[in-house]
Amino acid sequence: MLVVAYLAWSIIKEPTGTLEMDKIAGYIEEGAKAFIKRQYKTIAYFVALTLIPIVLFFQDVRIAFAFLFGAALSLLAAYIGLRVAVKANVRTANAARTSSTKAFTLAFRGGAVMGLSVVSLSLIGICILYILYKDPSPLIGFGFGASLAALFAQLGGGIFTKAADIGADLVGKIEQRIPEDDPRNPAVIADLVGDNVGDCAGRGSDLFESISDDYVTAMILGALLLAPLGTNAFMYPLVLGASGILATMVGVFVTRGWKKMKPIMSFNIGLLITAIFCVIGAFASTMALLNDITIFFAVVCGLAASLAVGIAVQYYIGINSRPIRKMTESSERGPALNILTGLSYAFQSPFLPFLFVLATILFAYNITGGSVYGIVGANIGTDLAIGIIMSSDTFGPISDNATGIAQMTGTRNGGTLEELDAMGNTTKAYTKAFASASGTFSTVVIFITYGKMVGLDIVNLGLLEPTIITGLLLGAAFPFLFSSLAIRATGKTAYKVVDEVRRQFREKPEIIQGKTKPDYARCVDIATKNALKQMVAPALLAVIGPIAVGLLLGKFALGAMLLGGLSASALLSPFFTFGGGIWDNTKKNIEQKFWMKGTPTHFAAVIGDTVGDPLKDVVGPSLNIFMKLTNMTALLITPLLLTL
Amino acid sequence: MLVVAYLAWSIIKEPTGTLEMDKIAGYIEEGAKAFIKRQYKTIAYFVALTLIPIVLFFQDVRIAFAFLFGAALSLLAAYIGLRVAVKANVRTANAARTSSTKAFTLAFRGGAVMGLSVVSLSLIGICILYILYKDPSPLIGFGFGASLAALFAQLGGGIFTKAADIGADLVGKIEQRIPEDDPRNPAVIADLVGDNVGDCAGRGSDLFESISDDYVTAMILGALLLAPLGTNAFMYPLVLGASGILATMVGVFVTRGWKKMKPIMSFNIGLLITAIFCVIGAFASTMALLNDITIFFAVVCGLAASLAVGIAVQYYIGINSRPIRKMTESSERGPALNILTGLSYAFQSPFLPFLFVLATILFAYNITGGSVYGIVGANIGTDLAIGIIMSSDTFGPISDNATGIAQMTGTRNGGTLEELDAMGNTTKAYTKAFASASGTFSTVVIFITYGKMVGLDIVNLGLLEPTIITGLLLGAAFPFLFSSLAIRATGKTAYKVVDEVRRQFREKPEIIQGKTKPDYARCVDIATKNALKQMVAPALLAVIGPIAVGLLLGKFALGAMLLGGLSASALLSPFFTFGGGIWDNTKKNIEQKFWMKGTPTHFAAVIGDTVGDPLKDVVGPSLNIFMKLTNMTALLITPLLLTL
Repeated sequence: MLVVAYLAWSIIKEPTGTLEMDKIAGYIEEGAKAFIKRQYKTIAYFVALTLIPIVLFFQDVRIAFAFLFGAALSLLAAYIGLRVAVKANVRTANAARTSSTKAFTLAFRGGAVMGLSVVSLSLIGICILYILYKDPSPLIGFGFGASLAALFAQLGGGIFTKAADIGADLVGKIEQRIPEDDPRNPAVIADLVGDNVGDCAGRGSDLFESISDDYVTAMILGALLLAPLGTNAFMYPLVLGASGILATMVGVFVTRGWKKMKPIMSFNIGLLITAIFCVIGAFASTMALLNDITIFFAVVCGLAASLAVGIAVQYYIGINSRPIRKMTESSERGPALNILTGLSYAFQSPFLPFLFVLATILFAYNITGGSVYGIVGANIGTDLAIGIIMSSDTFGPISDNATGIAQMTGTRNGGTLEELDAMGNTTKAYTKAFASASGTFSTVVIFITYGKMVGLDIVNLGLLEPTIITGLLLGAAFPFLFSSLAIRATGKTAYKVVDEVRRQFREKPEIIQGKTKPDYARCVDIATKNALKQMVAPALLAVIGPIAVGLLLGKFALGAMLLGGLSASALLSPFFTFGGGIWDNTKKNIEQKFWMKGTPTHFAAVIGDTVGDPLKDVVGPSLNIFMKLTNMTALLITPLLLTL
Repeated sequence: MLVVAYLAWSIIKEPTGTLEMDKIAGYIEEGAKAFIKRQYKTIAYFVALTLIPIVLFFQDVRIAFAFLFGAALSLLAAYIGLRVAVKANVRTANAARTSSTKAFTLAFRGGAVMGLSVVSLSLIGICILYILYKDPSPLIGFGFGASLAALFAQLGGGIFTKAADIGADLVGKIEQRIPEDDPRNPAVIADLVGDNVGDCAGRGSDLFESISDDYVTAMILGALLLAPLGTNAFMYPLVLGASGILATMVGVFVTRGWKKMKPIMSFNIGLLITAIFCVIGAFASTMALLNDITIFFAVVCGLAASLAVGIAVQYYIGINSRPIRKMTESSERGPALNILTGLSYAFQSPFLPFLFVLATILFAYNITGGSVYGIVGANIGTDLAIGIIMSSDTFGPISDNATGIAQMTGTRNGGTLEELDAMGNTTKAYTKAFASASGTFSTVVIFITYGKMVGLDIVNLGLLEPTIITGLLLGAAFPFLFSSLAIRATGKTAYKVVDEVRRQFREKPEIIQGKTKPDYARCVDIATKNALKQMVAPALLAVIGPIAVGLLLGKFALGAMLLGGLSASALLSPFFTFGGGIWDNTKKNIEQKFWMKGTPTHFAAVIGDTVGDPLKDVVGPSLNIFMKLTNMTALLITPLLLTL
């Protein structure tokens, strides 16, 4: 956190450029703060509501406090990251006027504030609670609180950003034919705010949750599986995580604008160095605390698998990849074939990253001689590089915002920002795929923890039991329902923004002539209000679903339901994020060929992108949290289920 | 089969109308026969290829013969239905010129030929083999043969029909702006042929497979679970099935054009009467052979659940339903929101029918005092009404063709055919949902049979075993991959038809002026060739997938894989069919309001329909077969897995 403070200071001391730039950045900062304030209030309300049954049922202040602490720290980490991100954007835009290397360094360090806050606050929170309680089981409250806050943050932020985006594009770009990021567009500020609250804050909470859940489950399973090792079993995941944070700090400082090096290359080197230090740290901590080389292998395998999903991202979403070329061809045959071809790739894309995850599970289990703790180790392995990957994710919205500010103020930067923005799109896609793989892993381990706690391994309940079959199938149905709700929520909010933008253009024709400023704040306000209203139903499903199944069908059916839910979510989530990425980059690919702009082919690709956008930025990422939260809910209510 | 012969005779003796009508019908009949001939040749080739390992490995002529017999009877049933369907279409069109009741009777009886052929030939085939072998286990070959043939038939026919449809619409309706079913469109005959080979023949094979698999698994599980009852245990499913056929015959003759009654009402009465006779038959056969009233309850519950899915169909796809109205509104905001809203409903739609199926499984299991045979009984219950439901399905393409023939020859029928066509769309949607629910049920039972045979219930392998978790997750990934392949296959074939139709319009401008007939046969030929080429890869996945997993990861992981595959397929299949139906009827709803034709709203709905069409007619139905075939493949290779 000291490094976070240093990084934040090193960014804020930079100049913000012209008055005009400062003003635009001010609008974005204000909008983001206004959204976050109201969103956090809404989340606080639901957290308080959830607290009541927790207190009443458990009558254990430790769980209740851990729950509040987890929710609060998750939101705090995202808040710190967001506050600095909305300061880094304009400073990046200003730096780009003179130095491309400095612009990159600033944008990446802005992202690193988020990355390091997430990993550090999670570890600090868990350590504090463990020092207080000396017992890992109440820490489930911490993970549950982080999960609940994360789902609200991701859903609310995601719905906001996509509603603003669709509103800005549909009315501005298509109906009024004004360019992207045009200051005459009433939704333009909402759109730029959205990048921050959706991508930065949402993903920050998501990964905070992943890492926290992983610590908690590793400690609980450690107590069960590594009992002879005493406190070393509890300390191990924390020390391992700490070594990952140290490695990340090295990586963050290595990743900067080097002369004569492309930004993406610099990031790749930073990631490689982080990975190397992670491996060294993992070796040292594993040998020191567990003295078991096989668990070290499992950890490294988890780390490698989480990085390897980047291969699939490159294959499917890379701007010159075969799928993108085929998509461009299909767009020539109209929007319907663009959508169909996109669906086809989207359905195929989860397969490869999924194989990495499954192979890692089998490898980790077998290398440790059939110990479930191997899987736990691999799971922590997937978290080691989260800090730097999260940095590269938040780097995306910062560059995107910087480009927007430069565009709106007419500042020249010789293509620097376009390059950073393109890189940001790639790293954002990579982070989503990474979050999905790491989330799948986490969910497997939470599920195993739940199963151990309710004794699924003791009763002889195999796959042939009708309770298990129906529970499993029912579980698979929930993510479909959740996806439906999340898509609808975005659509409804987008309608409201579309109507508002149309109203402003209709009632004040001076706006389009550039004579009057549009009412940016009203668009932000409408998107905020509706996003917060629409996020509730899908989020409740994640909590009420497992409780209902557990109470009605029992703890074993609930176990099967969790596994069914995992199988569907773990495939649907990358289906959405890869699909959206493919549609997005198809449009970008066509727009790079200037002679294609405005053609029916371009139009087809724009439709595909509009379809894909909410899928990749709302549904996919929130499904990722959905699967963890359903499992954490089950874990939390285990004591209740055991009394039935 | 005697009733089938009578029905066929009663249709063929009717007049075909004008020379022009006869000529158009001749084109369709020729095209359908040409496609079927080549498709069956291709299937024969793959059946022969599959026969080699079966003979080599089992060295059991009984299994090999059952396999060939199953494949042959499945294709024969579809062939009989198809041959009569392409004769009934023109006779329906002719009858509609004078009598709307006669037109309905003819079209429905044309469908009943398919319906009764499917249920009768399946039962006859199984009975013959059982009389020959006196042992149910080699009958797995029959089910596997039927499954393999069905997947090829559905995929090939589905790809053909959608490629022709997209080709006809995209170039004819959108580019050249000529109406639907215009004789100047080179792909119009291919489109009409497609309705027959895709919907009739494809769904016929699908349901032939469902019912055959159900008989085979019921006999095998009967031998295990009802051993004290001796041969009664084997006879029961067959007698029960026979009682369903008798009930269906009553229903078929009741369903006819009554004066002053809407066709859909007449069909509903026929269905109700069939159901009542089914219940009576089920009671008689259950008490006579098993003397266990609880199994009768399970059977009735299965029957009721299979009919209840109609409620969900009405809710989502009914022309004045809330989802269709919302979809119409969203289409006003452009194609992207039409697609997004459609996706949202599509993701939601599987939930309700799925709940019916799961509730039935739990009810059937518990009412019989925890006997898996209760689930078997419910599964046969879902088959009892297949005959009449399949009749109403094939009725759809017959009415559709009749409308097309009337349109192309300018024959007047006072709206009779439009009404039948609209009813056909509803019954087709219903049959798909029915096939999906019944297929889910069948797959559950095949899976249980497999599990019993490999001893999944004896080993203590619970949900927490990493082998089980990874097998399950891997299984869930296959249907995603299959969907991807099936969408791509349709897209590729459609490209070829689009190119051919464009070529004909470009090279012969006389076609669009109506001076020359287009080359219909060439379009049929191109669609045939490419559909047969493209159907191979997805079909192979269903066979090679389970074999590879079984050999590499073992029989228990394969069991988990089957369950994972079931959970994903059983949700994705209705996702596709409901989604496609929603997009289709949104377009129809908009087209009914004549002032909307040609507006951007209509255009948006046409795009949605083009996306939805292959999903509902290729991917959804074939996923349904995919899940059964993967399970049947596993069942077939069980002896091999047991030796490992």
